[in-house]
Amino acid sequence: MDLITITDLIGTFVFALSGVTVAIEKKFDFFGTIILAFVTAIGGGTLRDLMIGSTPVSWLDSNLHIYVIFLTIPISYFLPLFLRKLRKAFFLFDTIGIGVFTILGIQKSLEIGLSPLVSLMMGVISAVFGGVIRDVLSGEVPIIFKKEIYAFACLGGGVLFLGLGYISDIPIFNMIFSISMVVLIRLLSIRYKWSIPFNPR
Amino acid sequence: MDLITITDLIGTFVFALSGVTVAIEKKFDFFGTIILAFVTAIGGGTLRDLMIGSTPVSWLDSNLHIYVIFLTIPISYFLPLFLRKLRKAFFLFDTIGIGVFTILGIQKSLEIGLSPLVSLMMGVISAVFGGVIRDVLSGEVPIIFKKEIYAFACLGGGVLFLGLGYISDIPIFNMIFSISMVVLIRLLSIRYKWSIPFNPR
Amino acid sequence: MDLITITDLIGTFVFALSGVTVAIEKKFDFFGTIILAFVTAIGGGTLRDLMIGSTPVSWLDSNLHIYVIFLTIPISYFLPLFLRKLRKAFFLFDTIGIGVFTILGIQKSLEIGLSPLVSLMMGVISAVFGGVIRDVLSGEVPIIFKKEIYAFACLGGGVLFLGLGYISDIPIFNMIFSISMVVLIRLLSIRYKWSIPFNPR
Repeated sequence: MDLITITDLIGTFVFALSGVTVAIEKKFDFFGTIILAFVTAIGGGTLRDLMIGSTPVSWLDSNLHIYVIFLTIPISYFLPLFLRKLRKAFFLFDTIGIGVFTILGIQKSLEIGLSPLVSLMMGVISAVFGGVIRDVLSGEVPIIFKKEIYAFACLGGGVLFLGLGYISDIPIFNMIFSISMVVLIRLLSIRYKWSIPFNPR
Repeated sequence: MDLITITDLIGTFVFALSGVTVAIEKKFDFFGTIILAFVTAIGGGTLRDLMIGSTPVSWLDSNLHIYVIFLTIPISYFLPLFLRKLRKAFFLFDTIGIGVFTILGIQKSLEIGLSPLVSLMMGVISAVFGGVIRDVLSGEVPIIFKKEIYAFACLGGGVLFLGLGYISDIPIFNMIFSISMVVLIRLLSIRYKWSIPFNPR
Repeated sequence: MDLITITDLIGTFVFALSGVTVAIEKKFDFFGTIILAFVTAIGGGTLRDLMIGSTPVSWLDSNLHIYVIFLTIPISYFLPLFLRKLRKAFFLFDTIGIGVFTILGIQKSLEIGLSPLVSLMMGVISAVFGGVIRDVLSGEVPIIFKKEIYAFACLGGGVLFLGLGYISDIPIFNMIFSISMVVLIRLLSIRYKWSIPFNPR
């Protein structure tokens, strides 16, 4: 199992956990909790795969993603305290996760011949739409529409990745560098409370 | 027309009726009522077909499903009393419907080479996501996330179906037996008010 | 660039504007505004393409739709007054837009061998589901379920288009005539406040 797969699975795990967390807040039952874990973890990648025509969608290929997602259920049930302590680590994993999802989404779209601009959009969609579907299913307006600016972190890292593609032949280097950019922008945006309102008069 | 097709169409009809019922409660107009009938009846199977890459999605193949769904509109309009009397029969059809949808979804997924676990999930999605989309479009948190446990009936019947596949070569027997299991679990769950909350501390 | 493409892009632009307008009302941030512009403009066609199995979905083929949609952002920001003055013109474009989307959707579905009835539904879905997704993502019950009857304008124009297909060999004539029918029905429906409630006892 290579580094990309491992980070992908960590991202999946952390996204699933965020689904479980919302489900607990909303007092969903066991099954609702599982569904919310799933849509959060695989919603973005599924939407991307559907739109670019890559079916069966990627997480159906093996059972690995399913195991990882189901794992969040007993963990949230039996180890809630442990989870709370790890919150900081999770935030980092989550950020790495969206970075990985963005870059993998771009890569996959470029490979089937889509334009860089379209591929960039597919990358951002991979990273953010899981959360959008999670929020819609739990009866909320998607948080990303109002507060979260991590889409811009994805955008920044994605643009860097596309740019590096023109000047470097070492994919793994380009990936790591671009994912780091996503993490950097997101950390800075939290630190300095960046926000980008849209208030035309 | 074989037994499977007939049950599938009955399931479609009853699912569409449940969409119409919600639309009437919500005071949707004529067109909103038709849309809700459709998404409830074909939403789950459509999502499954999209994800496993079986397109055009199955209900587009012929006009049969469309006729059956449209039929619910005049019936709800002109025979509401008749419908109310049939409520018990509908509940049974509905339960048979989700059983059929589950088993057909599993079958279809196995046939294109997906793993049993993934196929099981596709089966459950076929049966329950029509209702999820109905609820989201009518501005409600999906009822299945909070109260209904029929997803577990699907799961039980689906596991049985997969198990029987290893020991029996008679598909029709396996199907009938598994669909009966779905019906049995659901009836028991209603009778004894089973519920599976998820309340970690 | 032919007439169809131009009208398609105008329709895309006006649909995107309607997304931006709702996003501003809802106080979405910059990114939420862009997403809402996108889903409104390309949601219906995307859903149609997914269901009929035409992937990558059409707007991914070039950057043209993306440019047109992004254009709505600076325009709404810097020229809100100009926009308000153009409201009447936009209403006409919007109506032409749904006409074009309906007819193109029917055409595309017929070409891959779907039945006229199914193709008609795909046409209407192309025209109306962008707005449905826009409303769901902004936490509203889709307006088309309650008040708007433009789905019937689509239906009327679509039926005419299918009918004309049997008696005329001049596609461009059939299209223009059918799109005019959509525009006509919609204008009449607004003028005379048509509505089609569904209130069984």
